[in-house]
Amino acid sequence: MVDIDYTATVSRNFKSDNVTPACDTIMAAIAAANRGTAPSYGADDITSELQRLAGEIFAREVAIFPVSSGTAANALALSQLVPPFGAVYCHETAHIATDECGAPEFFTGGAKIIGFPGAGGKITPAQVAAAFALAEDMGVHHVKPGAISLTQATEWGTVYTRAELKALTALAAKHGLPTHMDGARFANALVHLNCTAAEATWQCGIDVLSLGATKNGALCAEAVIFFDPDRARDFDRRRKRAGHLWSKLRFLSAQLVAYLQNDLWLTNARHANAMATALATGLNDIAGVTVLQAVDANELFVAMPEPVVAALEKLGFGFYRWPYVASDAVAIRLVTSYATPRTQVDEFVAATRELSRR
Amino acid sequence: MVDIDYTATVSRNFKSDNVTPACDTIMAAIAAANRGTAPSYGADDITSELQRLAGEIFAREVAIFPVSSGTAANALALSQLVPPFGAVYCHETAHIATDECGAPEFFTGGAKIIGFPGAGGKITPAQVAAAFALAEDMGVHHVKPGAISLTQATEWGTVYTRAELKALTALAAKHGLPTHMDGARFANALVHLNCTAAEATWQCGIDVLSLGATKNGALCAEAVIFFDPDRARDFDRRRKRAGHLWSKLRFLSAQLVAYLQNDLWLTNARHANAMATALATGLNDIAGVTVLQAVDANELFVAMPEPVVAALEKLGFGFYRWPYVASDAVAIRLVTSYATPRTQVDEFVAATRELSRR
Amino acid sequence: MVDIDYTATVSRNFKSDNVTPACDTIMAAIAAANRGTAPSYGADDITSELQRLAGEIFAREVAIFPVSSGTAANALALSQLVPPFGAVYCHETAHIATDECGAPEFFTGGAKIIGFPGAGGKITPAQVAAAFALAEDMGVHHVKPGAISLTQATEWGTVYTRAELKALTALAAKHGLPTHMDGARFANALVHLNCTAAEATWQCGIDVLSLGATKNGALCAEAVIFFDPDRARDFDRRRKRAGHLWSKLRFLSAQLVAYLQNDLWLTNARHANAMATALATGLNDIAGVTVLQAVDANELFVAMPEPVVAALEKLGFGFYRWPYVASDAVAIRLVTSYATPRTQVDEFVAATRELSRR
Amino acid sequence: MVDIDYTATVSRNFKSDNVTPACDTIMAAIAAANRGTAPSYGADDITSELQRLAGEIFAREVAIFPVSSGTAANALALSQLVPPFGAVYCHETAHIATDECGAPEFFTGGAKIIGFPGAGGKITPAQVAAAFALAEDMGVHHVKPGAISLTQATEWGTVYTRAELKALTALAAKHGLPTHMDGARFANALVHLNCTAAEATWQCGIDVLSLGATKNGALCAEAVIFFDPDRARDFDRRRKRAGHLWSKLRFLSAQLVAYLQNDLWLTNARHANAMATALATGLNDIAGVTVLQAVDANELFVAMPEPVVAALEKLGFGFYRWPYVASDAVAIRLVTSYATPRTQVDEFVAATRELSRR
Repeated sequence: MVDIDYTATVSRNFKSDNVTPACDTIMAAIAAANRGTAPSYGADDITSELQRLAGEIFAREVAIFPVSSGTAANALALSQLVPPFGAVYCHETAHIATDECGAPEFFTGGAKIIGFPGAGGKITPAQVAAAFALAEDMGVHHVKPGAISLTQATEWGTVYTRAELKALTALAAKHGLPTHMDGARFANALVHLNCTAAEATWQCGIDVLSLGATKNGALCAEAVIFFDPDRARDFDRRRKRAGHLWSKLRFLSAQLVAYLQNDLWLTNARHANAMATALATGLNDIAGVTVLQAVDANELFVAMPEPVVAALEKLGFGFYRWPYVASDAVAIRLVTSYATPRTQVDEFVAATRELSRR
Repeated sequence: MVDIDYTATVSRNFKSDNVTPACDTIMAAIAAANRGTAPSYGADDITSELQRLAGEIFAREVAIFPVSSGTAANALALSQLVPPFGAVYCHETAHIATDECGAPEFFTGGAKIIGFPGAGGKITPAQVAAAFALAEDMGVHHVKPGAISLTQATEWGTVYTRAELKALTALAAKHGLPTHMDGARFANALVHLNCTAAEATWQCGIDVLSLGATKNGALCAEAVIFFDPDRARDFDRRRKRAGHLWSKLRFLSAQLVAYLQNDLWLTNARHANAMATALATGLNDIAGVTVLQAVDANELFVAMPEPVVAALEKLGFGFYRWPYVASDAVAIRLVTSYATPRTQVDEFVAATRELSRR
Repeated sequence: MVDIDYTATVSRNFKSDNVTPACDTIMAAIAAANRGTAPSYGADDITSELQRLAGEIFAREVAIFPVSSGTAANALALSQLVPPFGAVYCHETAHIATDECGAPEFFTGGAKIIGFPGAGGKITPAQVAAAFALAEDMGVHHVKPGAISLTQATEWGTVYTRAELKALTALAAKHGLPTHMDGARFANALVHLNCTAAEATWQCGIDVLSLGATKNGALCAEAVIFFDPDRARDFDRRRKRAGHLWSKLRFLSAQLVAYLQNDLWLTNARHANAMATALATGLNDIAGVTVLQAVDANELFVAMPEPVVAALEKLGFGFYRWPYVASDAVAIRLVTSYATPRTQVDEFVAATRELSRR
Repeated sequence: MVDIDYTATVSRNFKSDNVTPACDTIMAAIAAANRGTAPSYGADDITSELQRLAGEIFAREVAIFPVSSGTAANALALSQLVPPFGAVYCHETAHIATDECGAPEFFTGGAKIIGFPGAGGKITPAQVAAAFALAEDMGVHHVKPGAISLTQATEWGTVYTRAELKALTALAAKHGLPTHMDGARFANALVHLNCTAAEATWQCGIDVLSLGATKNGALCAEAVIFFDPDRARDFDRRRKRAGHLWSKLRFLSAQLVAYLQNDLWLTNARHANAMATALATGLNDIAGVTVLQAVDANELFVAMPEPVVAALEKLGFGFYRWPYVASDAVAIRLVTSYATPRTQVDEFVAATRELSRR
């Protein structure tokens, strides 16, 4: 259930889940936090409550650090895990590899982000093992293996199974390395996996999670979560010197408390995923239109004839064209969100069906 | 005029202006920005309006970049001005020198922050000239002069006069160097100077301003303003790779638009300054109590006997003790804000008078 | 002509050209520089002479900066060309991409080294153009194109033709970007191209050259050469703050003067190349043995049956095994140098022929 | 005993000990290392011998890393000890604070070098304790105490006594921090202390030493020595990625082996110190001339009337003028070296006496 009806205003926009507004519950939490003075820099009660709540949600004591962007969460997390002469292994389409303007390199002091190709946005233990072997062979001349970073859900809208996660984290652990999870869309993955937050993370060997909320209903809230608080030593200074420690931190913490309370994050994500599934089901049924990947979360990549794409654009539907190899089709990316109305999904499918007939 | 009455909740807290809530007008602006979808990363209408409005306020075309902390604003601004092998000259108590956990060094890639001592938190042309001479004498072995950074209002609650600013910026310009202004409390300085924003900045030779709003009524808004937009080349990438480009940037821009509109920033600052002046007037009248500096803005540093300080603490007044040299007194720092009720000022003065009598 | 006979001691070592001693002429130049006191940090006469001589050799005024390692030369050069949020495009096997433990990232403050695959160690304009297009499409989220870096001779022992160089540098220039050349084995490439040093560099559009000497007879000398001295502004500070400005710089300059004088660099490189050609000619003639690339310089990659490789190792020949795809062969890398005796080439070919017969 | 007579050529140069040539023994060692091929990057026999010899000299297993400049040694050492958000406490005239163009900031990734004033170039436990207290008080907003760095001999030509060293290192250790020694002139200090190398370093609590040789007879050799080899973990990668791992490392190791063998370093330093003492004795005897500090090593700072200084310059004596407070005198710095002939000392004293008489 979406807590407000955006039908009127969220018109036909499948560009990204970051074009959405903040949801009502989050807005109310911000307003509620605006009472009188409060200790600055995280010494307030709401931040304490967030710390407690995160421990409850993840079923163990954790160290959680709110920040205001996913790039900050990822880059700060990696800077804590990887030395400046280290390497981070990830998928070549990972946000840390291509979409953060070099933030991980900046925050780590120069570590190398090494991306592997791979269908559906997932990397494999074999790829990582080969990279470890190369690094060992080259010794001091090569960057030192530092961490694995997995995007969950992936940039291709798929979700690593828990078995896949375990295989990768076990390999990392065998080499004494931590595994980071870029969870900008973690809630979407979690409802797909249909397990607890603990089962989806540290019980699969994940050491640090970048937990996203902004794409799923928050105004500007993400968090870095260390499942072993000891690993977070001095992380507060990293956050401070990156300019990511708010003086009025309660306003960031309040968003995350609301997000994790009463299953808001799961409710929002379930809706987004359901809309993506509905899109996929509808589109796959159309001749000449192909959904290119398993729709595990809230993104889909769809091949369709160029004239259809152009006509959909003309009708005012918002989406991005995406690089694709087939010669007689183009691919587009569609992203749904907690705020995507079912009517728009139906409209999009209907329009595509109609246009494909011509 | 303060737009809400915080008497009940903002109880006796003179610790900092960052313990305040966000003011109603700002909160309303955030809520108003939460309408439907909007282009992400600053392509929205509110951010455009901010750009226009800033140009109007500063009476010339400027390039303005909202960020969510003063540390981010300062460190990003300096990274644009100073090479990694450069030096930034400032007062030894400047926020960039002592309170940002090395953020300027981090963002610049290793530039050196060179702080000068000096009464009232101000540096002098003679100090800067001596530093330039040393650097020239030492050549390649020394960091290269890169920028001057002036805090306005200063960390000692004083305000550089326009003549003082001009003398320093002229010296910088003579050596081909830019001058940065840390304006975390710029509005407080501006109402003291009683001139236009243009007169207080670029017409005094300031090249880049870190404009603070959080301490003066915003939820989490600061901005970097380049008075020559050409100087901002690629600054958007610096902001992005530091994790300071919000996807839902409209929520940050909306705060700043509200802040700069209808003189809200000046109204708020005038109240804060007036409360500081009232405190100073009241306290200076008490035997054994001395206000240590010119109260130009919204901070005051006060020497008083240790027993009085201890008793005030016991009464629940919030403030910080501050290093001070006199043997028979301690110093405390008092900060007022847009939300400080006059009644609390009167209570504090009365309590101090009463305690000093014993 | 090799100036000393290392037959007795340089036994069968084809591992790298960096296992060689310094040649007699270079050693004599070092000894000759050891006369009395001299101004430190490059204010000496020998360093001035190097500056003059480099201008003569490259037929234009250049700015030359001696350093003591190729990694330093490359990383310093790139740090001058590319902003911290920039990208350097190169071959995926380039030294800057895989062999310098992240030095380019370190020196640039976090720039991204983007390597392309490609036969023979060369990149193509199409690859670079595609990368530029992607970067433009992604805007602020992606690193900004900063420079192209070409390795000459390549890591696969081939040499870019002047036409190939021009096509790449023209593309870079069209986008306002500089081209760097990693010339760790520049002399080997130059004698292959059979043209002047000017024709092989700036007349092909190269902006900055890392000139290697250590692999070709020096004790520890490399240099960064800017063909436009204006581009070298403040480079001396970059060198200093990297710890690469020697106090007794004359000892580094003296090596480079000797290297560039009287065609020593060309003479040494010609011998090395000739030995590689002789190896290739001899090996290609053996059934089951295949030289895998064009032997343009002093390296060759050779596929041969595993038992032959193992037997050669047992005989005491030094070389590295190299990753290779064919299932029934392994690849080895052989590197010749100015000091490789012809007798050893003949011995290696004879041994391989003998072993391949079995 | 100086192993060569430089009387003819080292004419009257007291500018620095880095204007000297390399001494004969070192040059012979370099030549001796130039035999046949050798494994690159430190896998050679001479580097192994250096490792062994350093352990013998310092009476415990150490990890020693040769590099080619003192700036590299210091900055690399500190980067191993201090996090990017850390602080290094030292004297305000320390080389790391003023003479390395920001190298420590660069190598550490932005740590802050905090210099204290103090007579004779020495810092005190009280200064460091006050800095620790400030840092603790400010918490996350301030850089975190990371290390103490002591220059031995100091930049003012004095030598910390072992008791002074112990007091400072004990304070560091109490806070869990390491102490680094910048030993660019360590041999000069050691012969003054008249104790073993072990007694002067780790037995006084020093954790890491930058050992200088270049100023005391080497061509280009310095070393970082970790007294606890465990502390050197991955240091080899730091050296590599800074471009400070020579491919022909044996030529650097050979200098250090020769330096530490047969007491060459002590012999050279004793001569340098003796020449400084002779200068001091001679000059102090002259009316109007004052040696300003304890001449513990090979530097002296001398106040004398401006006309005398000018006349000495005119006579061709080389030295630097140094900032000084007295109104009727200027200060000059005189540095002696292993290669300073006694005759020049006598000439300088005689000339000063003669000029002072007028």
